[in-house]
Amino acid sequence: MLHTTSIESPLLNALAGRANTPPPLWLMRQAGRYLPEYREVRSKVASFLDLCRTPELAAEVTLQPLRRFAFDAAIVFSDILMIPYALGRKVEFIEGEGPRLDPVKDAKDLERLKLAGAADRLAPVYETIEHVTAELPEVVPLIGFCGAPWTVATYMVEGGGSKDQAAARAWAYREPDTFQHLIDLLVETSAQYLIAQVKAGARVLQIFDSWAGSLPEDEFARWCIVPTRDIVKRVKAAVPEVPVIGFPRGSGPLAERYVKEAGVDAVGCDTALPVDWIRDRLQKIVPVQGNLDPLLLVAGGPALETRVKTILATLGKGAFIFNLGHGILPETPIENVEYLVRLVKTGQA
Amino acid sequence: MLHTTSIESPLLNALAGRANTPPPLWLMRQAGRYLPEYREVRSKVASFLDLCRTPELAAEVTLQPLRRFAFDAAIVFSDILMIPYALGRKVEFIEGEGPRLDPVKDAKDLERLKLAGAADRLAPVYETIEHVTAELPEVVPLIGFCGAPWTVATYMVEGGGSKDQAAARAWAYREPDTFQHLIDLLVETSAQYLIAQVKAGARVLQIFDSWAGSLPEDEFARWCIVPTRDIVKRVKAAVPEVPVIGFPRGSGPLAERYVKEAGVDAVGCDTALPVDWIRDRLQKIVPVQGNLDPLLLVAGGPALETRVKTILATLGKGAFIFNLGHGILPETPIENVEYLVRLVKTGQA
Repeated sequence: MLHTTSIESPLLNALAGRANTPPPLWLMRQAGRYLPEYREVRSKVASFLDLCRTPELAAEVTLQPLRRFAFDAAIVFSDILMIPYALGRKVEFIEGEGPRLDPVKDAKDLERLKLAGAADRLAPVYETIEHVTAELPEVVPLIGFCGAPWTVATYMVEGGGSKDQAAARAWAYREPDTFQHLIDLLVETSAQYLIAQVKAGARVLQIFDSWAGSLPEDEFARWCIVPTRDIVKRVKAAVPEVPVIGFPRGSGPLAERYVKEAGVDAVGCDTALPVDWIRDRLQKIVPVQGNLDPLLLVAGGPALETRVKTILATLGKGAFIFNLGHGILPETPIENVEYLVRLVKTGQA
Repeated sequence: MLHTTSIESPLLNALAGRANTPPPLWLMRQAGRYLPEYREVRSKVASFLDLCRTPELAAEVTLQPLRRFAFDAAIVFSDILMIPYALGRKVEFIEGEGPRLDPVKDAKDLERLKLAGAADRLAPVYETIEHVTAELPEVVPLIGFCGAPWTVATYMVEGGGSKDQAAARAWAYREPDTFQHLIDLLVETSAQYLIAQVKAGARVLQIFDSWAGSLPEDEFARWCIVPTRDIVKRVKAAVPEVPVIGFPRGSGPLAERYVKEAGVDAVGCDTALPVDWIRDRLQKIVPVQGNLDPLLLVAGGPALETRVKTILATLGKGAFIFNLGHGILPETPIENVEYLVRLVKTGQA
């Protein structure tokens, strides 16, 4: 995994398997509602989806956190549900409630998914990436991303978020063959989407499998690991130099199997994984990213300081990217983010 | 852990550390809405809480699944929110939505919790247990239970269920000292409650920590492991012969630390834990229980058969109790439960 060329970016350095002191730092959903300047831009458009589809504004909110904080990466402002949208499904984001989609209920609905035209509907994301990368310094790579097929499928089948992804799991258990069609379609579309993001300027990719934790192991292997591996294979064939971070949230001990089999270059860790375990079982295989509880960043104070120092002391000696274990919360005080950056970058509170 | 007396009950046998072929079997929430006879009894009372508080009816629904299926245990029909109710909080169960409580918001609300009278408000549970044990054969022990302090606290602080237990976690992170008061109170009340359930006839106890998975490791140790350990200590001092099963749902790799430190005699495993991992890391220390996905029991068919056989083949050679990884779902077909019992008991589909 060690590259021979010199890499200036701390993030790319860590992804190439090298320890950095201090480690690179970025935060999932760092472009978001905790920033007043984000809320201002958001108020100019009717919907969250409109913001994702307006490259000038999406680029602006992507860059906003970089102006405030010494983050080592930008991540394109978009949403994992851009793929169902690209496939012709109606996608809405209801304020205070979450996403709502026309549910995909059966094989007939699957046939109605529109591959033709998907690239056009995703074009605003590529344009956003072009805007952003024109502004970013060389040492701050832009991360492109997609949802993992399993996670995207859960939203498509449920018609939104859900407590336990029951509709998608029931389909996968009862009719694995038709469910496989949906997953295959998502593998193909997501791989093309990631490759196009790289061609537009993304230098790192992340695959978010937010609901990986809802599947028992055989199903986890089939619906989370294999589709991710298939995406990574396609991406590597097209753009071999771009590192891919996998994020199998909630996978528990199965995260080890995931890093061994999914082919990802690095793994994002959720808050439930103990740092000793991450070091001993995952960091020996790939660079790791994570895993501060976003609510500790809201709370601040001694609990935050203690936890950040524990994470740094345990994972900082190896290839490591400091991040949250889940997206930053809207109620996060900006001064706590400033404090976190100072603590990670200087080791001083 | 090996007892010298002869034990006829397969469940007690497994809890004493011995392998059984076939293993004992019971299902979390086995007395519940998937049974028409349960729905009939439920329709006679105005609310779920009324059912919990009416010993004759609660005893009847506790016994119903035993009349249909060759389960090796009964579990008293009750709810983990009987403790907040006993402490004087208003508790309601809204059909199709879940529990709703007056939230405990601050130290003042804590002072208002009423220890006096708690025993009276819990008396119907003890009476239910007396009714049930009078009917049960010797080989079918009754399981008493409570929620773990952390999980009960999350409902009390949130005022109901929640996606991420944010209110309770925020309190625990910001003001651990006052949150500790709530936990201490729950430890004390829960220990007395469990001991009284044993005195009424329960022969096994289970502590449900349904939201253990929402805490990072230091907080998991403080708010899940230590309070459970404190309850187990008190229970063991009063009724040393009664085995205690802990169920730290969602704890992932931290389940290993839990079984090493919480003092429980056996551990319940959720669906996300791989069976190899359970065998290698947990079953070497204590008997294990679990971990079929309840949705596989709804789905039935080849996926169910394959999974059940994998679980049996991997865990059945050691001390093991077959169960679900979470409560049985209301939409579960009764014939699938019959099929499961046959498969577990005979090894034949």
